[in-house]
Amino acid sequence: MLKVDFKNIFEETVGGNKAISKCDVQELESKVPAAHEKIQDWRKSEDAIFYDYIFRDDITAGIAETAEKIASNFENVIVLGIGGSALGLRCAAQSLLPPFWNMLGKDSRKGKPRLFVCDNIDSDSFAALMQLVDIAKSCFIVISKSGKTTETAAQFFIVASRLKKLLGQSWSKNLVIITDPKSGELRPMVEKEGITSFAIPPKLGGRFSVLSPVGLFPAACVGIDIENLVAGAREMAKRCCSPDLKSNPAYALGGYHYILDTEKKMNISVMMPYSDALSLASDWYVQLWAESLGKAGRGQTPVKALGATDQHSQVQLYMEGPSDKVFTFLYVEKFSSRNEETIVEEPSEAFSYIKERTLSEILNAECEATIGALTKMNRPSMKISFPNVDALHLGEFFMFYQIATAFAGALYGINPFDQPGVELGKILTREILTKR
Amino acid sequence: MLKVDFKNIFEETVGGNKAISKCDVQELESKVPAAHEKIQDWRKSEDAIFYDYIFRDDITAGIAETAEKIASNFENVIVLGIGGSALGLRCAAQSLLPPFWNMLGKDSRKGKPRLFVCDNIDSDSFAALMQLVDIAKSCFIVISKSGKTTETAAQFFIVASRLKKLLGQSWSKNLVIITDPKSGELRPMVEKEGITSFAIPPKLGGRFSVLSPVGLFPAACVGIDIENLVAGAREMAKRCCSPDLKSNPAYALGGYHYILDTEKKMNISVMMPYSDALSLASDWYVQLWAESLGKAGRGQTPVKALGATDQHSQVQLYMEGPSDKVFTFLYVEKFSSRNEETIVEEPSEAFSYIKERTLSEILNAECEATIGALTKMNRPSMKISFPNVDALHLGEFFMFYQIATAFAGALYGINPFDQPGVELGKILTREILTKR
Repeated sequence: MLKVDFKNIFEETVGGNKAISKCDVQELESKVPAAHEKIQDWRKSEDAIFYDYIFRDDITAGIAETAEKIASNFENVIVLGIGGSALGLRCAAQSLLPPFWNMLGKDSRKGKPRLFVCDNIDSDSFAALMQLVDIAKSCFIVISKSGKTTETAAQFFIVASRLKKLLGQSWSKNLVIITDPKSGELRPMVEKEGITSFAIPPKLGGRFSVLSPVGLFPAACVGIDIENLVAGAREMAKRCCSPDLKSNPAYALGGYHYILDTEKKMNISVMMPYSDALSLASDWYVQLWAESLGKAGRGQTPVKALGATDQHSQVQLYMEGPSDKVFTFLYVEKFSSRNEETIVEEPSEAFSYIKERTLSEILNAECEATIGALTKMNRPSMKISFPNVDALHLGEFFMFYQIATAFAGALYGINPFDQPGVELGKILTREILTKR
Repeated sequence: MLKVDFKNIFEETVGGNKAISKCDVQELESKVPAAHEKIQDWRKSEDAIFYDYIFRDDITAGIAETAEKIASNFENVIVLGIGGSALGLRCAAQSLLPPFWNMLGKDSRKGKPRLFVCDNIDSDSFAALMQLVDIAKSCFIVISKSGKTTETAAQFFIVASRLKKLLGQSWSKNLVIITDPKSGELRPMVEKEGITSFAIPPKLGGRFSVLSPVGLFPAACVGIDIENLVAGAREMAKRCCSPDLKSNPAYALGGYHYILDTEKKMNISVMMPYSDALSLASDWYVQLWAESLGKAGRGQTPVKALGATDQHSQVQLYMEGPSDKVFTFLYVEKFSSRNEETIVEEPSEAFSYIKERTLSEILNAECEATIGALTKMNRPSMKISFPNVDALHLGEFFMFYQIATAFAGALYGINPFDQPGVELGKILTREILTKR
């Protein structure tokens, strides 16, 4: 079970005028019932369908079988998707696959395919990928709920041309499409060509979709334990159901961030995992937090950092810059490597403190030291500890932040499930491309 | 030559109360002479040695020959370094090497080695790397000016044990050390074991060191054109030498950011390249800006984003969240891929606007659309255009931001070349590891 430690968010530990006081907590507590009610409304209207979707009996139905088939027929799985259609999967793959996955031999990958996620339309990267892989041996998973995403459509049209040229009538055997069950631009093609497909619940937004076929199907193709992802999410949902800050850590996290932003002028929220595996957890968080809460002139700016690397990049600013940030550290109690090497070289006096230490002991000491140093500078932080990084704990993490985000949205009085601010850019893109 | 477009930073274009007015510019202009003087002082004291170091005749001396030897003797170049010892190189490699470099065959790499940059001490990644590569065929480039960097030392001790076990007396043939010319923990070993080494000028800080052996030597090992990196930097230094906002774009950029932070309460600076190649340019910028300017309670928080990807993650917040951010877009006029494919599939009505377009046309249209949309929302931004991404323009970019940072430091009245705020963390790390 993830441990969530809020100790260093409170005035009595951190001191200064930026931490949360008892008075702040009382005020927050008075707002919990209404925010909780709002969430229940969103569940009824299915805006917050992410809560209940994970408890459906058929959530993984058909996924394992199809994934197995893809894995045995193809060398590469190439996901065409952007934003919420890509970030959850990228995070899961980084967290749960061995490092350097795509460079490992097939045996080390237990026979599973390599994985590429095309979440940009840079022509150089895309051309390089098309050159790198054997397209005939690649399965393209096209993900777009609306089927209207420009970037994904553009990639898909290029891939479709190539597949048709290469494979003729059987071109669509190399495709899986994940989209709305009925509407959109992709669904008619699925029906016409008989393409393998999965449905995204119509009201499930991209940034809340990792625990749906969007994240689960491609994850299953590379052998990620999706049953445990879902099980972890369910456990966390049960842990975070009561309208009470003390027993519901997701409400507490959402609520404390809300206070720090609105009352303490901390308009920046930094997430800093001390773990390469969790390095994209902060990218996933950045989208969730920014796109859900950044509206109506409200919303913290989420920032990603990575420990220990960014101690040598951003920590100077965190320590001595303006106190406009709250920090969340992701801490891993037990790394995966077995029989980890200790430092046996006889280091000079200057390095006697790392003699007979392992890299993970040093990394974790640095995490604790950074938290300690920030606390001494009266800068509030919280710490989320992973007993180890596996599917169960990652599932917990996803659900934890989804609930925290919904709760923060209710406190801000905004709708965390829409994204009206991106429409103007889409209109202007169409205008520019039509004019030229 | 990089084009720097400030148009959308000014009140007359952007409107609203967050853009820069004529009055602001006048006030800023009055501060330029003193800040320029301060920079001249820093050059004399060698704090700002980065200005003059690039003009040394011997800046690349010996680098090409040694790099050639490494490239022909080793399959892998593995850099052990963190922060400023890694970020410039990582940015240069991402910008200038073909995508998927480490997955390409040796021919596609023109016989050059693969490149791994170990800038964290995650035990799982490190163990996986040690498993992945043939250590006997790997050259380890150890980079630490002081020789006191915990993370780099820890990795180095583990690698040294392995090399000694594997190669006996000739273990140090697989090493290159880049450190202070005289002092520090690594220099004595260089002398004793006769290890190949390069010197970092003692006063050149890590985040200003990409155009020294720190960045240039490993870059040369993988075939990056370091002469043009330096040439670009020299051109930019010449372009940005006068104490005048109109003719010195680096002073203008530093100055406008300073005003936006201190006068307009825009405490966040977002850099958003619309290019995968330039995706780590923002990581390099984040360190430079954060560690140089984040002190004495001052300093903007730099944030990295990537276009078009983060349109589906952060742009909602940028458009409708609080107006506390200034944006810098990196725009690429010409991508590398030749004969880029156009979209020839007959798309449905909904996609007629991308018919016969290339991916780079779409990407660039999206960049312009995002700038246009932010402008409509009265949110100031600037745009830096790369005619194409090559060594010359990247060298310009590095120097441009180094000068802008120095100038901003002078305006803030802080020393942009130290980092006192990271010391406490180091002390606490040592305490924790000694106690256990």
